[in-house]
Amino acid sequence: MSIVVQKYGGTSVATVEKIKYVARRLIERKKEGTDVVVVVSAMGKTTDKLINMAKEISNNPCRRELDMLLSTGEQVSISLLSMALKEYGYDSVSLTGSQAGIKTRGYHLKARIADIKIENIKKHLKEGKIVVVAGFQGVNEAGDITTLGRGGSDTTAVALAAKLNCPCEIYTDVDGVYSVDPRVYSKARKLKNISYEEMLEMASLGAGIMETRAMEIGKKYNVPIYIAKSEGNIEGTYIKELSEEMEEKVITGLTVSDDDLMVTINNIPYNIQNISGIFEELAKKDINIDMISQTAAVDGFVNVSFTAPKLEKDIITKIIEKIKKRLKGIEVKMETDITKISVIGLGMRNQSGVAARIFKIFADHNIEFKQVTTSEIRISYTINTKDKQKAILVIANEFNL
Amino acid sequence: MSIVVQKYGGTSVATVEKIKYVARRLIERKKEGTDVVVVVSAMGKTTDKLINMAKEISNNPCRRELDMLLSTGEQVSISLLSMALKEYGYDSVSLTGSQAGIKTRGYHLKARIADIKIENIKKHLKEGKIVVVAGFQGVNEAGDITTLGRGGSDTTAVALAAKLNCPCEIYTDVDGVYSVDPRVYSKARKLKNISYEEMLEMASLGAGIMETRAMEIGKKYNVPIYIAKSEGNIEGTYIKELSEEMEEKVITGLTVSDDDLMVTINNIPYNIQNISGIFEELAKKDINIDMISQTAAVDGFVNVSFTAPKLEKDIITKIIEKIKKRLKGIEVKMETDITKISVIGLGMRNQSGVAARIFKIFADHNIEFKQVTTSEIRISYTINTKDKQKAILVIANEFNL
Repeated sequence: MSIVVQKYGGTSVATVEKIKYVARRLIERKKEGTDVVVVVSAMGKTTDKLINMAKEISNNPCRRELDMLLSTGEQVSISLLSMALKEYGYDSVSLTGSQAGIKTRGYHLKARIADIKIENIKKHLKEGKIVVVAGFQGVNEAGDITTLGRGGSDTTAVALAAKLNCPCEIYTDVDGVYSVDPRVYSKARKLKNISYEEMLEMASLGAGIMETRAMEIGKKYNVPIYIAKSEGNIEGTYIKELSEEMEEKVITGLTVSDDDLMVTINNIPYNIQNISGIFEELAKKDINIDMISQTAAVDGFVNVSFTAPKLEKDIITKIIEKIKKRLKGIEVKMETDITKISVIGLGMRNQSGVAARIFKIFADHNIEFKQVTTSEIRISYTINTKDKQKAILVIANEFNL
Repeated sequence: MSIVVQKYGGTSVATVEKIKYVARRLIERKKEGTDVVVVVSAMGKTTDKLINMAKEISNNPCRRELDMLLSTGEQVSISLLSMALKEYGYDSVSLTGSQAGIKTRGYHLKARIADIKIENIKKHLKEGKIVVVAGFQGVNEAGDITTLGRGGSDTTAVALAAKLNCPCEIYTDVDGVYSVDPRVYSKARKLKNISYEEMLEMASLGAGIMETRAMEIGKKYNVPIYIAKSEGNIEGTYIKELSEEMEEKVITGLTVSDDDLMVTINNIPYNIQNISGIFEELAKKDINIDMISQTAAVDGFVNVSFTAPKLEKDIITKIIEKIKKRLKGIEVKMETDITKISVIGLGMRNQSGVAARIFKIFADHNIEFKQVTTSEIRISYTINTKDKQKAILVIANEFNL
């Protein structure tokens, strides 16, 4: 019998009524003769509420205990969903991450799946049950409950599909993957297909539909993924292996992010230790640096710019104070009104000149850019936030997104 | 190092502030040089809220899934309490029932503790940690989460104390055990000591302070138990092995319960199958029958009265309809305005005439009683609820409660 893993996010199970609706959808699928494993997140804003309780106790709550706390959110969802399935007359069983055999390693709050002991799930499937698995959680070698961090439920779902060698369907509050986020460009087209690599770039650039880790697993194990709305039957987007030949277009998608700030440090005495020292300090505090640009040395001094999450502003400010004490004479500027705009497409591999076309568009429309970085299938620009809408429009027009 | 098991109920951990207060109390105890294991219940009305969600899905939710759901309540409490302890600088670890090694058997929602694999708790105590254990829950042989039913957290605490061979302190919203519930008799005295057997009778009669099962384990393993208020330092009540010689008084306590209804069936053709058939029907539906009285047969007919929980009224009514069809000519009366009043005391073993004294008091004060049953250390009467206050007063006066 064929198997499918489905995943429903927090908004799709936000109320008891929505949970019942998901149950009915699962039953339809089961009736078609498919074995169903379903991964669910915590109901609606549950996780936020739990975090707020923890914050009332500590600004920096023990991470092990926070995992113990947060994992209850999914446990509530799975039990209610399994009850609903049984109420409708279908046998089912709910399993916590631990019971589902999800073994993790690494830090609490951002553990990684090390392995899935799939036997228990298989046993229940064999007994004809719909298996309801708690997303976002597992158990480490010490027997402690761990959570997988942002997008953890997607990761659970794709990893289960990889292990069960079956497709994975992600049901969410958006109806597929668009060339550009429809909230910033209303004329964006929904993509019928997208490759793992393109989706991975879009995910890592904050497209907000799926997290990078889930996509990495999908790509590694070649799991066919389908993203669609949890309500209704609107056709969504398939994520799968695509060759660039299949695609006539150069650029598949455009992503926009206002989540980063940009730090520019001028007049650094040129010396490799000075530069690496700055990034070592940032790494020590786990600051996720994104775009780095450095000018060539002039008169023995260099300028460096980098972007980092706005959320980390306070820590970055402290680190800069520390660096200022060591590197006398440097000038530091922190800009928060910047936007990162990226274009992604497998087609770029074969077509050169995409960067040049965008440089020309920016010049024609008087859009200043501060940084540019490229990968094989992506080009990203840092621009002023005031130019965001204009930049989206002119790029989308140029590349027919 | 000496060990103590403490237990805090739902009202004692109802808010984050109260959890912090409990953490500070635990630390005081730890500072005195005692290893501390603490058992906590779900916060405030959490369990009720979870049950209401389940009821929105099903009138009769799957019991396994209900256990999965309810167990999250304690998991939230233990994680927050452990966070608070660490925030105050004390090392601690929270453990679910499963992680604490609490193995259960029997039905979901009313599982019994089969054994406690105490090694994990001992390991953490050895490392100097305050060990925070989820009450009310365990794991069965199939690896499913189970809950222990009413008073389950008390049971967890006393069973842990039995296994760790240490005293158990139950902190709650009452400040000890009273001769009579102060809510019904304001002049009641708080007892400094009470024996296991007396407390067991009081518990089974609905004194509402501790559940029967916890007391049974306490008695069996001779666990010294102390019951006191979770706030402040008012001296509570010790439950321990007492010999009647130590006590000059005949009666230790009086309990009152309005939770039962009384069914009287008249004109049953006398025949042992007829009588036992009635109780078999009730047992089949798991109806907990309490006081049974039967008159001697007159002209081949007998009358039977029994009490049962008011909560089961609907089911009992249905069973009676069924019995009426089989036993033509019987007359059935169901009374809900009845009260069960019981007096308890080890002293009764050596002093006869307690029942006679109460009969006389009742007669003197014109209090009608419908049933009377006795055990070695207890006498219970069913009376009309309208006579309740008068009965409490005259008995309390007579026996100086």
